[in-house]
Amino acid sequence: MTTPATVTEEAVASLRATADPRLRDVLTGLIRHLHAFARETRLTHKEWERAVRFLTETGQTCTETRQEFILLSDVLGLSMLVETVNAERTPGATESTVLGPFHLTESPVRALGADIDLVGGGEPCVVSGRVVSADGTPLPGAVLDVWQADADGYYDVQRPDVQPPGNGRGLFAADTEGRFWFRTCVPSPYPIPTDGPVGELLSATGRHPYRPAHIHFIASADGHTPVTTHIFVKGGDYLDSDAVLAVRESLVKDFARTEDPALAKEFGITGPFRHARFDLVLERA
Amino acid sequence: MTTPATVTEEAVASLRATADPRLRDVLTGLIRHLHAFARETRLTHKEWERAVRFLTETGQTCTETRQEFILLSDVLGLSMLVETVNAERTPGATESTVLGPFHLTESPVRALGADIDLVGGGEPCVVSGRVVSADGTPLPGAVLDVWQADADGYYDVQRPDVQPPGNGRGLFAADTEGRFWFRTCVPSPYPIPTDGPVGELLSATGRHPYRPAHIHFIASADGHTPVTTHIFVKGGDYLDSDAVLAVRESLVKDFARTEDPALAKEFGITGPFRHARFDLVLERA
Repeated sequence: MTTPATVTEEAVASLRATADPRLRDVLTGLIRHLHAFARETRLTHKEWERAVRFLTETGQTCTETRQEFILLSDVLGLSMLVETVNAERTPGATESTVLGPFHLTESPVRALGADIDLVGGGEPCVVSGRVVSADGTPLPGAVLDVWQADADGYYDVQRPDVQPPGNGRGLFAADTEGRFWFRTCVPSPYPIPTDGPVGELLSATGRHPYRPAHIHFIASADGHTPVTTHIFVKGGDYLDSDAVLAVRESLVKDFARTEDPALAKEFGITGPFRHARFDLVLERA
Repeated sequence: MTTPATVTEEAVASLRATADPRLRDVLTGLIRHLHAFARETRLTHKEWERAVRFLTETGQTCTETRQEFILLSDVLGLSMLVETVNAERTPGATESTVLGPFHLTESPVRALGADIDLVGGGEPCVVSGRVVSADGTPLPGAVLDVWQADADGYYDVQRPDVQPPGNGRGLFAADTEGRFWFRTCVPSPYPIPTDGPVGELLSATGRHPYRPAHIHFIASADGHTPVTTHIFVKGGDYLDSDAVLAVRESLVKDFARTEDPALAKEFGITGPFRHARFDLVLERA
């Protein structure tokens, strides 16, 4: 028999036969915090109904090319927390940030130097750097999964009518010295999708939906812990009010304007371009 | 700029422009508890991904006739808590319990004495009682919304091929003395739906999916706070291990076997039947 006073302990006790001890611990923590939340706020039945409707709509907004629950986790700061709570890295190792909801398709394998901007029209840009271990050893063959929105602020999966699949995406292998370089366009700030439940939440809380301009990376190498991160365009808008609370100071990079003809030639560009340098420092696993 | 140490305060601060102060308080509590949960359990990225997948599937399992998020809230004990946290009733007032996921359609209006078992085959049963105010005053015209599973343990919406719509459901108005009575079949224990994400959760935590036999009620009357509750069949299985933690001692009722021919005649039944008596005591709003 249950009473309001005992329901939390009973819910926790109902997990007693859980085979996986980690699952039991996580669910115990979840039940305790959910219940404490409902008790402290004295959540009403009407509010609970609204939450059920909100979560149902969030699930039903998800498709092959849209992940509204990741977006929800992102705007609540939960994604940033999860990405960092287990990542107390060696000083100097590249800091992580959120995965975001658009890592949905496999990035196409591309050669170093390839242009991931298949549409064109944006400001030409080169990103280059090295992937190294925390002690400075280069990591030849390290894999970089890169994805970004186009100059209009949309990912390929959001605009299949305008962008070919794989636009703004590339899977690169670092060279024998751990170096990488690729061409793209300078990313733009963009609003996260606002036509679903998360958009309603932002609107009800008076928040804007914009993210500062960024390029996503997942870097991995044998014997090292992968890092999920972005680089942000220094000087851009929204760096101090990212809708998903994911800007870290160490990840804001200068996308410097360059007219150096030798450098342009090295990257196969004619005319001025922007150049971001980014070294990825991975920790040993 | 965000750091792992400041992300919770930043997420809370992002709510500063929320127009509705109650929404701001509820979301602040939600963010603080979600973040504390992730910090305390050191939730991993893989576990977060699993949770995103689980919640997405839960949303996508919902249909017009199925509410998997209510079921999830139910098995975590959250529904029972929400139903009771704001319902510290006058001693003697009818206690509430969970709404459950099957209050999905409008119950058909029926005359007092009608049989809500449109299919037959179960053990004949009468439920009768009075709806009164906490001081004992009868509440003529009080409305009772009643719903229950059939003798096989399914609601009408789960088995549209076997049960006509509205089977096991009725909307009754109490008579001039606050009395009500209706016929039905004795309900059976039944498993909550296990073919969705919530079923997986029960299985992973070694829990059975059964609910003890019960009949749902929502009672309402002018000037009174409605109560959402059940009655449970005394002596039945699972009273001590309800999958949704919703059994309260005061709601367990004797479904007494009766052979009294006068009573049978009064209710229009031939032969023995089971008789549950249940007075609903409502608090003034």
